[in-house]
Amino acid sequence: MGGPQYLTGDKASIEAFIDKFDVFLFDCDGVLWSGDHLFPKIPETIDMLRKKGKQLVFVTNNSTKSRGDYKKKFDGMGIQCSEDEVFGSSYSASIYISRILKLHAPKNKVYVLGESGVEQELDSENVPHIGGTDPSLRRDMEPEDFKTIASGEALDPDVAVVLTGLDYHPSYLKYALGMAYLRNGAKFLATNIDSSLPSAGTLFPGAGATSAPLIKASGQEPLALGKPSQAMMDAIEGKFQFDRKKACMVGDRLNTDIQFGIEGGLGGTLAVLTGVSQKEEFLAEGAKVVPSAYVDSLSDLLG
Amino acid sequence: MGGPQYLTGDKASIEAFIDKFDVFLFDCDGVLWSGDHLFPKIPETIDMLRKKGKQLVFVTNNSTKSRGDYKKKFDGMGIQCSEDEVFGSSYSASIYISRILKLHAPKNKVYVLGESGVEQELDSENVPHIGGTDPSLRRDMEPEDFKTIASGEALDPDVAVVLTGLDYHPSYLKYALGMAYLRNGAKFLATNIDSSLPSAGTLFPGAGATSAPLIKASGQEPLALGKPSQAMMDAIEGKFQFDRKKACMVGDRLNTDIQFGIEGGLGGTLAVLTGVSQKEEFLAEGAKVVPSAYVDSLSDLLG
Repeated sequence: MGGPQYLTGDKASIEAFIDKFDVFLFDCDGVLWSGDHLFPKIPETIDMLRKKGKQLVFVTNNSTKSRGDYKKKFDGMGIQCSEDEVFGSSYSASIYISRILKLHAPKNKVYVLGESGVEQELDSENVPHIGGTDPSLRRDMEPEDFKTIASGEALDPDVAVVLTGLDYHPSYLKYALGMAYLRNGAKFLATNIDSSLPSAGTLFPGAGATSAPLIKASGQEPLALGKPSQAMMDAIEGKFQFDRKKACMVGDRLNTDIQFGIEGGLGGTLAVLTGVSQKEEFLAEGAKVVPSAYVDSLSDLLG
Repeated sequence: MGGPQYLTGDKASIEAFIDKFDVFLFDCDGVLWSGDHLFPKIPETIDMLRKKGKQLVFVTNNSTKSRGDYKKKFDGMGIQCSEDEVFGSSYSASIYISRILKLHAPKNKVYVLGESGVEQELDSENVPHIGGTDPSLRRDMEPEDFKTIASGEALDPDVAVVLTGLDYHPSYLKYALGMAYLRNGAKFLATNIDSSLPSAGTLFPGAGATSAPLIKASGQEPLALGKPSQAMMDAIEGKFQFDRKKACMVGDRLNTDIQFGIEGGLGGTLAVLTGVSQKEEFLAEGAKVVPSAYVDSLSDLLG
C-alpha cells in the first residue's frame, strides 16, 4: 500500500483523488489561512470544488468565534461560504450540552472560561451561562475573593458544567472560580484541547494551554468536544447526513485533523503542509498517524 | 516495623521523638497557618522547640513572597523567626540560577512569570530579569502583539531562562511571550509545581496550575526548584550545614513535604493533619509516601 500519495504537480492523481469524494471537511487555521493571512488562491480552490458539486464543511477547533463570526471572516477573506457550512468546537460543545447532557433547570448553568464565540453558541442552543466575557471577572483577585469562594458565597449554585475554550483574558479569579465549581462536582468539558494556536506564521498558546490551570488544579481531564473527539464527528454527520466513505478530511495537524478523519472512518484524509505538521512526521518509519495523501498547499488541488 | 507513629496525646512518645532531632524543617502553609489564619498555639510550639535548642528552618514553596516578606508575615503572626531561617522556592530558584547555571552576560536574563517574591530573590542574587510584575504586561493581547512576538521584535534576545512561580496576574500576553522564549531555546525552570494553594480552608490554583499553560503550550516540563525537588534540599543543607539523620521534615502534604524529607534521607518526617493530606492516605494499605510520625496539629507537640 505504500505511504501517503504526494499530489502536488500531478494533475491526473489530483483529479482522481477529488473524484473519489462527495464531501470535503476542511480545517481552517493552517489550511485556508494563518491568523489573518490568507494563503494564495484559496478562494479559487474552494470555488473549483463547489463547481464540481462537492459538499463543503468547515470544521474548526477555534472556539473564540461563533459560526456567525466565522461567516464574517470568510466574507472578509473573499471565500464563499454559508453559516450553515461552518462547524466550530463551541457549537459542538453547545450541542453536546443541550442535546446529550440535557440539563434540567435550575441546575443547568455553564461556567465559561472562554470568549464570546462560546457564549453565542450556548445562546443559540438556549443554554444559560455565566463567566466568559463578563467584565467583572477581568480583575485582580482580592483577599476577600479567597473567603467568598471558600464559603461558596461567590459561587452560583446552579452551575452544572465548566466549559473551557481558548481564553485571551485569563485571570486568577476565573481559574479560582472554575476550580471551585469542579471541586463542587461540575462536569468538565472543553471545546478543544489544542496545545497551540497557529498565528502570524508561528505558534501561540491554544485552548489546551489556557485550560491547563484547571486541569492541573482539579486533577481532572475535560471531555473535549473538538477534533479529534469523535463526538464532534458524530455531530457533524448528524447535521449534514453523508456517507463517511465518500468524505475526506483536509487539515494541517496530524494529531487533530488527520487523526479525526481516520478515527471517524472517512474515505480519505489530505494533509497540507502550510500549518503545524511537517511531512517528515508522517513519512517517518513507524509514523502513527498517516494521511491518505498530501499537498504542499491547498491550492495545489487547482492542478 | 508498622505504620507511622501517632503522637497526639502521648507525652512520652512526643518527647522521645523531639529528642531524636537537632533540626526541624517546617513547611508553613497548612502547618503553621492557612492563608492568613494562624493555627492555635503555633508561637508557643515554635518557642518550645527553640528552648530545647533546636535549629529551625522554614521551607516554603510559596514563591510569591521573598524571605523578607516571610519574615514580616511571621512577625505579624507573632511567631519568632529570623530572615535567615526562611528558605523559599523563589530563593532556591535564584540560587540555582546564580550558582549552578552561572549564566554569562549579556545572555543571562530571566523572563519571570510570577510575583514580586521571585523578583526580590533574583535581585538578591544579582540576576537580571524581565516580566514578573511589569505593569506593561498586565494588559490584553492586541493583534499587533501576535506579529511582534512572531517576528521576535517583542522579545529580549538576552533571555536565557523562563522561570515560573505562582502568578496572581496571568495574561495571554505573558503566556505568549513565555512560549516564544521557550521555543527560542530558553531553559525552563519553576519555583515549584504545586497544583494547589491552601487558603481560607480550601484549595486554590497553585504555581503548577498558573504555570500549566506554558507546560502544555511548549510540550516541556520545567525543572522545579521547590519541594520535593532535591535541588532544594541540597541548597538548604549547603546553607545550614547539618546532619541529615538528625533532621526532621514537618509538613501537611505527602507528595511534597513528606516525600521531600524521605528522598532527602532525613532522620524523620512528621505529618500534620491541618492541611492538604488526610491520614487515610498514608494509613492505607500500600501507601507510597508514609511519614515516620503524625499529629493532628503541630501544637500537639506541646504535649
